[in-house]
Amino acid sequence: MEQIRGGYFSEKNDLWPGQFFSLEVEKVLHTEKSEYQDILIVQTTHHGKALILDGLIQCTEHDEFAYQEMISFLPLCAHENPAKVLIVGGGDGGVAREVSKHPLVQSVVQVEIDARVIEASKRYLPSMSVGFSSPKLTLNVCDGFEYMRNHKGEFDVIITDSSDPIGPAVNLFTKSYFKLLKEALKPDGIVCSQGSSLWLSLEHVKGTMQNCRQHFDTVKFGVANVPSYPTGQIGFVIGALGENRPLESPTLTFTDEEIARMKLRYYNGDVHRAAFVLPTFARNALYK
Amino acid sequence: MEQIRGGYFSEKNDLWPGQFFSLEVEKVLHTEKSEYQDILIVQTTHHGKALILDGLIQCTEHDEFAYQEMISFLPLCAHENPAKVLIVGGGDGGVAREVSKHPLVQSVVQVEIDARVIEASKRYLPSMSVGFSSPKLTLNVCDGFEYMRNHKGEFDVIITDSSDPIGPAVNLFTKSYFKLLKEALKPDGIVCSQGSSLWLSLEHVKGTMQNCRQHFDTVKFGVANVPSYPTGQIGFVIGALGENRPLESPTLTFTDEEIARMKLRYYNGDVHRAAFVLPTFARNALYK
Repeated sequence: MEQIRGGYFSEKNDLWPGQFFSLEVEKVLHTEKSEYQDILIVQTTHHGKALILDGLIQCTEHDEFAYQEMISFLPLCAHENPAKVLIVGGGDGGVAREVSKHPLVQSVVQVEIDARVIEASKRYLPSMSVGFSSPKLTLNVCDGFEYMRNHKGEFDVIITDSSDPIGPAVNLFTKSYFKLLKEALKPDGIVCSQGSSLWLSLEHVKGTMQNCRQHFDTVKFGVANVPSYPTGQIGFVIGALGENRPLESPTLTFTDEEIARMKLRYYNGDVHRAAFVLPTFARNALYK
Repeated sequence: MEQIRGGYFSEKNDLWPGQFFSLEVEKVLHTEKSEYQDILIVQTTHHGKALILDGLIQCTEHDEFAYQEMISFLPLCAHENPAKVLIVGGGDGGVAREVSKHPLVQSVVQVEIDARVIEASKRYLPSMSVGFSSPKLTLNVCDGFEYMRNHKGEFDVIITDSSDPIGPAVNLFTKSYFKLLKEALKPDGIVCSQGSSLWLSLEHVKGTMQNCRQHFDTVKFGVANVPSYPTGQIGFVIGALGENRPLESPTLTFTDEEIARMKLRYYNGDVHRAAFVLPTFARNALYK
C-alpha cells in the first residue's frame, strides 16, 4: 500500500530502474496477503479496475484485452488444431476467456497456484473472471510444475500467463521449465510464455529464448502494445516442436464477422503477422 | 521545475488524465523560458539526456531513434523520389539527422520557430543536433506557416515534427494546416505528421485523419513503439496526393548492409509494412 501516494499508484520496481508508471486511484477495492503474494485491486479514475500483485500491475480493464488476446491467439492460430490447451497461471480468468473463444479449442485445463487471486477476480473483475464459466474449462488450484509432471504428452498448446521474472515466477523462465512444457505437449505442440519487453532488457528476452531453444525447434518472439505495462510493450516467447514451423502465419484466419462475433478488439490475422516483425536492434540481437 | 520531485520528473498532463510516466533525474542540465516555451534538459539515471518542452517529454537519448527514424523513413520510403524535403519543427535535430541519411534525398529545408531549442540541443544533445551539420540541410528559424505560404509546389515530402496538440502546436493538426502542406508540395507529394497514440484518444487521431483527408487522397496511420511517450506508442498521419497510393509498401527496400551503414536501429522494410497494421479496435474506428 506504500505504493499509493497522493492519489496515485506508482509501479516502482528494480526490473525497470529509473522509470515508473502511475495510475490515479479512485478507491482501493481489495487488499490481501495470500500465501503466495500481495493482492491489490483498485478502482482507477480512467483505466477501470486494476489488478496488482506484489506491487506489479497485472492488468487494467482499459487495455487487458490486448494482452489476453495476443498471448492466447498467437499460439492457438499458429497451431493446425489446438484442441486441448493448458493455461499455467492466469488467475484473473482473462486468458481462459480468450482461449475458450477459439472454435477449434475443445477443452482447456487451467492450473493456478493461488486460489485467492481467482476469488478476488471473481468478486471484482467479472469481465475477466467470466472466463472461469466457460464449459470448455477445468480449473485446478495447484502448482503448474507438479501438474505437468503428472500429465505428459497431453496438450496441443500450453500458455504460461505469469507475472514478471522476480519472486516465484522466476522459475517459469528457466530451461527446466521449458523441458517440462515440452514433455506435457503432444508431438506438434506449441508453447507461449509472457516474455517481457524488448526495451527493458534485451538480454533477458535473449536468455528466455535461449532456454526455450534448448527444447523447442522453432522459437520466435512476438510483441503487443499494452500501455499499462512498462515501456508500453509486452512480448511473447513462442516455441514449437518441429523445425521451421511458420509461427508468423496464422493457420486459421478469421473473417471480420468472426472477429466481431468473438469480440476480438486487438487480434486479427494481420496483427498476428505484424507481431513478429521486430525493430532492427531487436531483430539483430535475437535472430543473428 | 515543479514537475521534478523526489528525484523524478513526472509528466502529468491533461492530455493523458489518470496516468503519468516518470523518469529519474540525475541532474538538471538546462532550464530556460524562451519566447515560445519552457525548455528543460535533464540528465536521467537510465535514459540518457531528456529534452522536455512545456513539461512534455520530447525525447530521451535512450529511445529517440525509434521516433526520429519512423517519422522520417515512413514518408521518405513511401515516395518514389523524395529529392526535396521540408521539416517543420524538429528543433532537436534528430529528424534532420535521419532524413539526411536517405540516399535519394538531395536537399532538406528545416523551419523551426524557436532558436533557443536549437541552441540548447546543440549544446546538450549532440547525438541529435548532429543533424544540423548535414551538408544537405538549410536551417531557417521562422514560422512554418509563414514559410509555406511563400513556398508553393516545392517539396516532395514534408515532415511535421511537432509537440503534442496543446498550446502553439494545436494549429498543426487543423484542416487549414493540411491545406498549406498540400500547396507546398509537388503533385505527387507526401506529408507525415506526429499523430499521437491510438490508446490516448482515438477521437483525436480520427479528427486529424479527417482533417488530412480534406486535402489528401490517400491517408494512413502508422505506429511505432516509443517507451518514453505516453502509452509507449506514437503514431504518424501520412497523407499522399493521388488515389490509392500504396503507402504501406516501401518503394525502396534497404539491404541489411545499407540498414547497418545508415545506423537504422528501428526502421527496416518489414517494420515499414507492419507499422500500418492496426489492432482491430483502431482499424475499425479509423478505416470503416
